Amino acid sequence: MTTATKPRVLDHPTREEIRLEGVLHALSDAVRLRIVSDMAQADGAELSCSFFDLPVTKSTRTHHFRVLRESGVIEQVYRGTAKLNALRRDDLDTLFPGLLDSVLRATDAQTARLGA
Amino acid sequence: MTTATKPRVLDHPTREEIRLEGVLHALSDAVRLRIVSDMAQADGAELSCSFFDLPVTKSTRTHHFRVLRESGVIEQVYRGTAKLNALRRDDLDTLFPGLLDSVLRATDAQTARLGA
Repeated sequence: MTTATKPRVLDHPTREEIRLEGVLHALSDAVRLRIVSDMAQADGAELSCSFFDLPVTKSTRTHHFRVLRESGVIEQVYRGTAKLNALRRDDLDTLFPGLLDSVLRATDAQTARLGA
Repeated sequence: MTTATKPRVLDHPTREEIRLEGVLHALSDAVRLRIVSDMAQADGAELSCSFFDLPVTKSTRTHHFRVLRESGVIEQVYRGTAKLNALRRDDLDTLFPGLLDSVLRATDAQTARLGA
């Protein structure tokens, strides 16, 4: 019997399974908006969870990334032992043209208005 | 002592108090998206809660309108005994340009994709 040879794969919705309600819910949190905003600035790069400077505990951080993954906003893949994250921009832009960009602009506008 | 002469006024956030996270949360529900979508089509008209054809109980309906009001998405005012509703489009468009329109387009796109 062999073990531990199968790569770990995390569950993601297919493009067709992504729902607007779930995406908006995933984005309705200040920490998750910050993660998505940082990812958008990284322009498609895969980033580790620890890349993000967030004022939350490790378990809360893990929760936020899971909400983003399960709603279809981000993709999480294992590369060796690292879990890397990227925005599913193509999927979101195809399903909901302009939505992600308007949310990112709104996040910037609110940050400018209220301070970080 | 006189009673019941004061008009009932419901709590609303001022424009400055509206938060993106709250707006996105308010919009992250199929029934509330439908209410907002119907209001947008009414083009500024004040509509009673009973105008909307929704597959929910009266108390759930009331809850959804309250979430929309408390987040700043809609205004609810009493006109005599009727409670009327209208989108706060000016406030939302000023704070978050393009956001509401992109959500409305995304709602239409999803409805067309999945059926009503």
